[in-house]
Amino acid sequence: MATMASLFLKTPTPSPSLPKTQKTLFIPPLTFTLPSRPTSKTRLKARISCGLIEPDGGKLVELFVEQSHKDARKGQALGLPSIRLSTIDLQWVHVLSEGWASPLKGFMRESEFLQTLHFNSLRLGDGSVVNMSVPIVLAIDDSQKQRIGQESSVALLDDQNNPIAILKDIEIYKHNKEERIARTWGTTAPGLPYVEETITNAGNWLIGGDLEVIEPVKYNDGLDRFRLSPSELREEFTKRNADAVFAFQLRNPVHNGHALLMTDTRRRLLEMGYKNPILLLHPLGGYTKADDVPLSWRMKQHEKVLEDGVLDPETTVVSIFPSPMHYAGPTEVQWHAKARINAGANFYIVGRDPAGMGHPLEKRDLYDADHGKKVLSMAPGLERLSILPFRVAAYDKTQSKMAFFDPSRPQDFLFISGTKMRTLAKNRENPPDGFMCPGGWQVLVDYYESLTLSENGKVPVPVPA
Amino acid sequence: MATMASLFLKTPTPSPSLPKTQKTLFIPPLTFTLPSRPTSKTRLKARISCGLIEPDGGKLVELFVEQSHKDARKGQALGLPSIRLSTIDLQWVHVLSEGWASPLKGFMRESEFLQTLHFNSLRLGDGSVVNMSVPIVLAIDDSQKQRIGQESSVALLDDQNNPIAILKDIEIYKHNKEERIARTWGTTAPGLPYVEETITNAGNWLIGGDLEVIEPVKYNDGLDRFRLSPSELREEFTKRNADAVFAFQLRNPVHNGHALLMTDTRRRLLEMGYKNPILLLHPLGGYTKADDVPLSWRMKQHEKVLEDGVLDPETTVVSIFPSPMHYAGPTEVQWHAKARINAGANFYIVGRDPAGMGHPLEKRDLYDADHGKKVLSMAPGLERLSILPFRVAAYDKTQSKMAFFDPSRPQDFLFISGTKMRTLAKNRENPPDGFMCPGGWQVLVDYYESLTLSENGKVPVPVPA
Repeated sequence: MATMASLFLKTPTPSPSLPKTQKTLFIPPLTFTLPSRPTSKTRLKARISCGLIEPDGGKLVELFVEQSHKDARKGQALGLPSIRLSTIDLQWVHVLSEGWASPLKGFMRESEFLQTLHFNSLRLGDGSVVNMSVPIVLAIDDSQKQRIGQESSVALLDDQNNPIAILKDIEIYKHNKEERIARTWGTTAPGLPYVEETITNAGNWLIGGDLEVIEPVKYNDGLDRFRLSPSELREEFTKRNADAVFAFQLRNPVHNGHALLMTDTRRRLLEMGYKNPILLLHPLGGYTKADDVPLSWRMKQHEKVLEDGVLDPETTVVSIFPSPMHYAGPTEVQWHAKARINAGANFYIVGRDPAGMGHPLEKRDLYDADHGKKVLSMAPGLERLSILPFRVAAYDKTQSKMAFFDPSRPQDFLFISGTKMRTLAKNRENPPDGFMCPGGWQVLVDYYESLTLSENGKVPVPVPA
Repeated sequence: MATMASLFLKTPTPSPSLPKTQKTLFIPPLTFTLPSRPTSKTRLKARISCGLIEPDGGKLVELFVEQSHKDARKGQALGLPSIRLSTIDLQWVHVLSEGWASPLKGFMRESEFLQTLHFNSLRLGDGSVVNMSVPIVLAIDDSQKQRIGQESSVALLDDQNNPIAILKDIEIYKHNKEERIARTWGTTAPGLPYVEETITNAGNWLIGGDLEVIEPVKYNDGLDRFRLSPSELREEFTKRNADAVFAFQLRNPVHNGHALLMTDTRRRLLEMGYKNPILLLHPLGGYTKADDVPLSWRMKQHEKVLEDGVLDPETTVVSIFPSPMHYAGPTEVQWHAKARINAGANFYIVGRDPAGMGHPLEKRDLYDADHGKKVLSMAPGLERLSILPFRVAAYDKTQSKMAFFDPSRPQDFLFISGTKMRTLAKNRENPPDGFMCPGGWQVLVDYYESLTLSENGKVPVPVPA
């Protein structure tokens, strides 16, 4: 992925060890490693001196134990009742630890859970309101609750039983699954991917508290260096002298319609008077449903698409957003936007039916395609964020490229849905010229081929590094 | 009901035609009739000079057509496409027309509907936020939508096809019933009373707009004079020089535990330094489920209980709250509280499991009994309202009366649930002395007897006047 990094993250003021004249390889330097972040004074200074949007609650929360206290905390964790985390729980620890959910300091206690379910927002001590639309909670079962007893802290373990965090000042409360699902998804129909994966078989209790993270969450999948924290992203934007940051959330392959949209957004921001708008191209890296294209393949596809030069590396930062996916439409899009405020974005691009999917039982989309952007524009706590609704892009047959749809000549446009795109790639067919760069398309074809081979028992699904 | 009126609503500064020395009969004087309200300058003055809490949005909305324009509006209505209202639709017209839902000016348009579902609140033009937790919407079906076509106004008809209102600047949008139900009730289980009554068989569209009410909604059931509007209640509180108004919402018979709570609340308010706290005893008068005690019987029961002298008529105003009941627990209790702000209440008494009911399918309460008061205390737009949580009252066997539960001697207390109370009344058994005054109890016994007689086909259920 070195090529992609060089394309995406050229640093105008590179580290002294790297030559200034060439597009530099972006590998986070050592000072970026997570445990040392909160104490870095130079970073703090950079953050204050830059004009980026303030994090929710005024201060970016980071929940890492200082290096000098690590051993003590590990020792303490060994003496506590423990909870072994699932993969998705661990992704939430990652999200919380880096402050994507600032000012949240750990898994939600009941008052935060209830405010999230009922109001999609949290009221802070000073009376101000921040957005918070999806519950970030940790479920435990009856026997775990019993084991915890009257303890006020618990240790959180990874799948190797290593303590990775301590949850302090805990509160255990009922996990009313039906109500949680109904209020988050607006349906209780069986078949919601996140629900089936994390809620249906989860325990009947939720445990909230303050997190102290001993070990930063790493995935060792070759992509960790693209997982920049909000603090690292803010530093990068500051380094680049960004006076506007516009975020593009995605969990699908990028086609030229997306690229058009992103470049056009930059053009509009320049027209508005901004001198140096920076794009945060921010693929979601946590849990996704089985028929989505996996992160590693998407990153490879993004690399190829961006090699094509459609997006300018000088003004683009690509990074992985570590959150799991809820597929909760208008509720979830608020989370996607709110988290990007914490990473320094003050503009958010929103499309048709964000975080939507088909209804699990009925032949229709689960959410009205326009509700996402409407709800986003009215959401409490997101008033500071400028919402940029998608213009509809489609394939213009007269120009043989993706262009903004012109309603005066609908016959000239071809709409290529996600389903259609996947079907073409599965069948090794080509989309029309100009829909996606050939290299990017080939990645999709390779991915579906790897699936077929895997299904036939020939080779396992390769994960490109 | 004259006796009840005299007990409840003794007016310290009675109309000149009534003697000053006796407890006066409260019948709203002619100046209270609805159509003339908004134009009464004296009333406006009284409202401004009094220290009551401001209505939501700063100004109490009243949606009545001025007397001089009535005929013109009726004529206009006859030329418009029309919608015949159900009984519950009509109750909502009543609610909206008097400003209980201020600053809402009519049935919700989509932006209000979405904010209600997702945020339980509405953001106003000036950036301030008011609470709004239950959708106040009007459903129409495909053929009605087609008949309306491109018209910008529709006439709303009562069950005699009389035009009672015009809905202007209409917006028609999709009625996603499943999502509405899930987000309002936190469940989609079949058997929710309001859902079955008004949503399941309703049309697939909602129509919002601004209401102009031609004819104030009247029920002609002998109880209309107890249906004071927010404006009339504010005038009454002002007349009484209230410096605090505490509202008690109820939809059940009153027992001495309730009475204890209300008198104790007044005592606490006096201790807090208020000089003249006034109780708004505010039974809900709109739709209730089949096994609730009907309004007319409840009013008769309240009369008997209050004749008993437990509550002081000098400091109590009884009135009917015209809203239908959703049984939507923590979501609905916000509506119950918000509407009372508009009527001038700055204190709201909340009990266990407000607006709750049993789960329609499972053997448990639908809502956590504590969520109502928790959600209420955190709800956006209700910051100005002081929430007074119930203290638990139970029957103290050592004193033979209702008293606050003393956890140090639980064996001395008897909890008499609503179900137990109803079972006793049905079986013509008596509760322990001091649970409820005998006259009030007799009303309940009579009610259940009337049901039995009615079921046996002997006589119809009498409705006491």
